[in-house]
Amino acid sequence: MLQNDLILRTLRGEQTERTPVWMMRQAGRYLPEYIVLRNKYGFFERCQTPELACEITIQPVDIVGVDAAILFSDILVVPQAMGLEVQLKENVGPLLPDPIKTAADLARIRVPEVDETLAYVFDAIKLIKQELNDRVPLIGFAGAPWTLLCYMVQGKGSKTFDEAKAFCYAQPELAHQLLQMITDTTIAYLKGQIKAGADVLQVFDSWGGLLSPADFEVLSLQYIRQIVASVKDEVPTIIFAKGAWHSLEAMSATGAAGLGIDWCITPQMARQFAGNQVTLQGNFDPAKLLSPIPVIEKEVKEMLTAFGPGRHIANLGHGILPNVLVDHARAFVNTVKEFRF
Amino acid sequence: MLQNDLILRTLRGEQTERTPVWMMRQAGRYLPEYIVLRNKYGFFERCQTPELACEITIQPVDIVGVDAAILFSDILVVPQAMGLEVQLKENVGPLLPDPIKTAADLARIRVPEVDETLAYVFDAIKLIKQELNDRVPLIGFAGAPWTLLCYMVQGKGSKTFDEAKAFCYAQPELAHQLLQMITDTTIAYLKGQIKAGADVLQVFDSWGGLLSPADFEVLSLQYIRQIVASVKDEVPTIIFAKGAWHSLEAMSATGAAGLGIDWCITPQMARQFAGNQVTLQGNFDPAKLLSPIPVIEKEVKEMLTAFGPGRHIANLGHGILPNVLVDHARAFVNTVKEFRF
Repeated sequence: MLQNDLILRTLRGEQTERTPVWMMRQAGRYLPEYIVLRNKYGFFERCQTPELACEITIQPVDIVGVDAAILFSDILVVPQAMGLEVQLKENVGPLLPDPIKTAADLARIRVPEVDETLAYVFDAIKLIKQELNDRVPLIGFAGAPWTLLCYMVQGKGSKTFDEAKAFCYAQPELAHQLLQMITDTTIAYLKGQIKAGADVLQVFDSWGGLLSPADFEVLSLQYIRQIVASVKDEVPTIIFAKGAWHSLEAMSATGAAGLGIDWCITPQMARQFAGNQVTLQGNFDPAKLLSPIPVIEKEVKEMLTAFGPGRHIANLGHGILPNVLVDHARAFVNTVKEFRF
Repeated sequence: MLQNDLILRTLRGEQTERTPVWMMRQAGRYLPEYIVLRNKYGFFERCQTPELACEITIQPVDIVGVDAAILFSDILVVPQAMGLEVQLKENVGPLLPDPIKTAADLARIRVPEVDETLAYVFDAIKLIKQELNDRVPLIGFAGAPWTLLCYMVQGKGSKTFDEAKAFCYAQPELAHQLLQMITDTTIAYLKGQIKAGADVLQVFDSWGGLLSPADFEVLSLQYIRQIVASVKDEVPTIIFAKGAWHSLEAMSATGAAGLGIDWCITPQMARQFAGNQVTLQGNFDPAKLLSPIPVIEKEVKEMLTAFGPGRHIANLGHGILPNVLVDHARAFVNTVKEFRF
């Protein structure tokens, strides 16, 4: 039995004694303890060595006191397992030197046997669960198929991912073949994470907000829907489609227990769009953690008040920025933990 | 009298024989005729030489047949006129090597006499009006104060403009001083554009969508409101705050004649938020111009149908991408021009 199951109860819609809190990218570059390991080991070495992934995953639980751990990994381990080369350069971002552009490129990749290609993730989860010793839940995750397609086609980060979009608009059959391959891999991958011990799953659609509402349904949501349907009866699932406020109602209808929202929508509007049957997660502007601590405290309280009690997990509206001071991250977490309605 | 005043009548809310159309960044890198001039002259040389600015401004009227010309210039001429060094590198983006970070930095800049510092823009407008010879209206423009602050503080482009935000959150008094200086300069600048002959004005808030609804009001909209109030009785004014769908109602209340919207909102939702007293402009996904022409034609018709007749200026939801073929841009424009309800 988990000692702190606030997040699980909140995802079930139960009233809790306070709002739970974690931060996207909480295991990361703002923590000096993480930087030490980053300077010693390459990115994939950290992901693929269960002891390192475990240590990094648990750091923010110990250091800033969040109510959940989230697996240290990257969404691009899935394209890698599918057979694409992925390089992750510190401070530069991902590079996929041989992206998918044609049917021949698609033939180069496959839906892999995840128990072979991603066994290191499942081993890490088992070790983390053991080390966490039921203090807080462990969140597993994967990228949404659309977001993974963006990288697999564009080959690197982009503001607009227009090459990825052009691929989808000009070769829709190929795009849907690729999206289905990613979806099938992701379902097997997330089922493996559940089997290894993940208590909650989050699907990150970082680039969902680049699509029109109609294209979001066709290129993204219909695949997320398959994923949620496959895992939601085993563990509660959170969809975070950054910027896709227009589809909160449709995402709520997938059966996801939670929906992540960014700071560019008010909690009131998000609740109105999403309805009352889903827990909302967010939505502090990550750049606001660069404010003086009294400003952070004031704005966090305003956010909590705007969401109201219940059906809310406090979080940032995107990943924590690397230049945030640990004390500021702690001020965010502590303000949530001390707040009472 | 303008021979083609479709856009002006649409901005007044009159029913017109068809939907008017232009494209953001229509005078730009997708046109081979523009590339010829780009390869011969530097960016600011093109802006500051009325004959070049005039030629570039009129190119898309002749080549793709849009219903308006928009002044060839850049929003960063304003920070430049205020005393900041601005470099614009082809294919790299803007660089401001001495950005504003402190009160001492703020003392380095001023609200300039626009008739001296920006006379070249007014000269270009006069020449363009003469050369256009009343074929279509000329749109003048400026950046919104928030978007200009982003560049003036961050010093370069960014996905998140977190340094600009941190400046505003940590030093709000300084931020508001800067925003007011930009606003005062912009009002004088736009009044000069009207005097020189601009028929319509557009205020570009490219980074408005990075702010929460509350911060958008405080850091952006209250300054846009001052600008619109100062010019709207002389010429119709369009606000394009990319991503700020949440504030369409508030932007409509400024008295702007038009509101630009991006493709991440349906026309129906935008109309619902903005009300019936304002013209909407947009909102084709610029990446969709990379699709095959039949797909473009089909999707443009769907967009026009979704907006319905009246109170709509067809446009992209952001600037045209440099890798769009001219024939595809022309397919966009022609589909609008041939469509009848």
